[in-house]
Amino acid sequence: MGAPGPLSLNTATVRDQWNLAQAIEGCARHGIPGISPWRDKVAELGLAQSAKHIRDAGLFVSGLCRGGMFPAADAAGRRAAIEDNLRAIEEAQLLGAQCLVVLGGGLPPGSKDLPGARAMFHDGLAAVLPAARAAGVTIALEPLHPMTCADRSVLSTLGQALDLCDEFGAGVGIALDVYHVWWDPELAQQVARAGKRIAAFHVCDWLVPTTDLVFDRGMPGDGVIDIPAIRAMAEAAGYAGPCELELLSHHWWKQDPEAVLTRAKAAHATSC
Amino acid sequence: MGAPGPLSLNTATVRDQWNLAQAIEGCARHGIPGISPWRDKVAELGLAQSAKHIRDAGLFVSGLCRGGMFPAADAAGRRAAIEDNLRAIEEAQLLGAQCLVVLGGGLPPGSKDLPGARAMFHDGLAAVLPAARAAGVTIALEPLHPMTCADRSVLSTLGQALDLCDEFGAGVGIALDVYHVWWDPELAQQVARAGKRIAAFHVCDWLVPTTDLVFDRGMPGDGVIDIPAIRAMAEAAGYAGPCELELLSHHWWKQDPEAVLTRAKAAHATSC
Repeated sequence: MGAPGPLSLNTATVRDQWNLAQAIEGCARHGIPGISPWRDKVAELGLAQSAKHIRDAGLFVSGLCRGGMFPAADAAGRRAAIEDNLRAIEEAQLLGAQCLVVLGGGLPPGSKDLPGARAMFHDGLAAVLPAARAAGVTIALEPLHPMTCADRSVLSTLGQALDLCDEFGAGVGIALDVYHVWWDPELAQQVARAGKRIAAFHVCDWLVPTTDLVFDRGMPGDGVIDIPAIRAMAEAAGYAGPCELELLSHHWWKQDPEAVLTRAKAAHATSC
Repeated sequence: MGAPGPLSLNTATVRDQWNLAQAIEGCARHGIPGISPWRDKVAELGLAQSAKHIRDAGLFVSGLCRGGMFPAADAAGRRAAIEDNLRAIEEAQLLGAQCLVVLGGGLPPGSKDLPGARAMFHDGLAAVLPAARAAGVTIALEPLHPMTCADRSVLSTLGQALDLCDEFGAGVGIALDVYHVWWDPELAQQVARAGKRIAAFHVCDWLVPTTDLVFDRGMPGDGVIDIPAIRAMAEAAGYAGPCELELLSHHWWKQDPEAVLTRAKAAHATSC
């Protein structure tokens, strides 16, 4: 098979080392053509300044992280989440992001009502979708690993995300992160079903052992995920976009960010 | 809804505190009518002695833990797994266990071939099933949480387990452990599909936060799983058996086992 799509750096990968300006300059210096900023980093630098800096560096924006997280304990909380998503859509538009990555959010505190939380996600998505369509911003639903279901993502599988895509139609796709879906017995079937709706392709690796449910992801090649096989499925389904490295890791956050980007480029070339 | 089925103590719950004889006596003393021993505990006490001690105490055996784990790096390893499962079937028969709990096993060391490991599981199951049927031992396929896919269980979902049940027919059912399946968007659908093939019902709870991928399970009621709702699904599907507490937890392993059993009985009465 051919080479992976162009590398994009999700800024979470160097979250603890660099602000957004440093990450943009790091990408430019290392010849990494894309970036996917998190909203807190954008807010810190300023939205207009972030957009200008990324544009001046010649980088594409593979996605903006992150919207969604609609479940909340009360109506005011759910309204606040919707309003925050409307701001995220504007930000994604201004940054020229290829998509807004949308996460499920967890159960409201104290709740055991998972179907209820999933219904809140559904309704929140319905509420913001008209604005996303009007702005030309693709919503990329990102199912997260089921181990995050309680506190981060009631959106757990590709099948579930694609059911939402089927229901809502235009403007909604998926973010396919190998870390979150590699275990799924329906992986091949659901990636094929996704087809052109794959709006983002995220990579990192599953380490053995994994010592933290959120922050122990591995550099591609260091774990057990057959990333090229999943990329081949995505390409067969019609995906021809970037390959975004999103590496949330206490280990990598302690390393020299120059070394992280050097390793990232090598891992992209050999293990994606 | 009515009360849960009779409580059974999976011996893993007091793994670090008690040997099998102590666990049997503990169940009898606390009025817990069932037990589900692990094979290492049975081997330690001796198979015949274990069976006699359990029988003398008047306990039922809700299951024997555990067979399966068929994937291996080479043919010799796969043969050894099959032979070990044949011994497990004999043990389950002699103990009068209601089922032999069968786990997927992880990827062979160094392998990234998840479909291959799943094929090895399929073939191992096919190899031992005739012996299980001859012995009258029900094989209970237990899908484990996807976070264990790399190193413990390539059997990840109820849907996957039920596909195997559909293929193999008589003698194969599932062990429904709420901890492993509560997140599944297809939960209600797959439990209904399981019907009378639910051979075991295991409970514990998902803690927030969860600090270990294997050994941080919670006592029923201490986490976010709506256990009564899942039990209601199982009962609607036709399950009318015991409620087995399997609590792998560094926290609970440090407690006085008498206190663990007291809490277990209360949790069974109020939160299952």
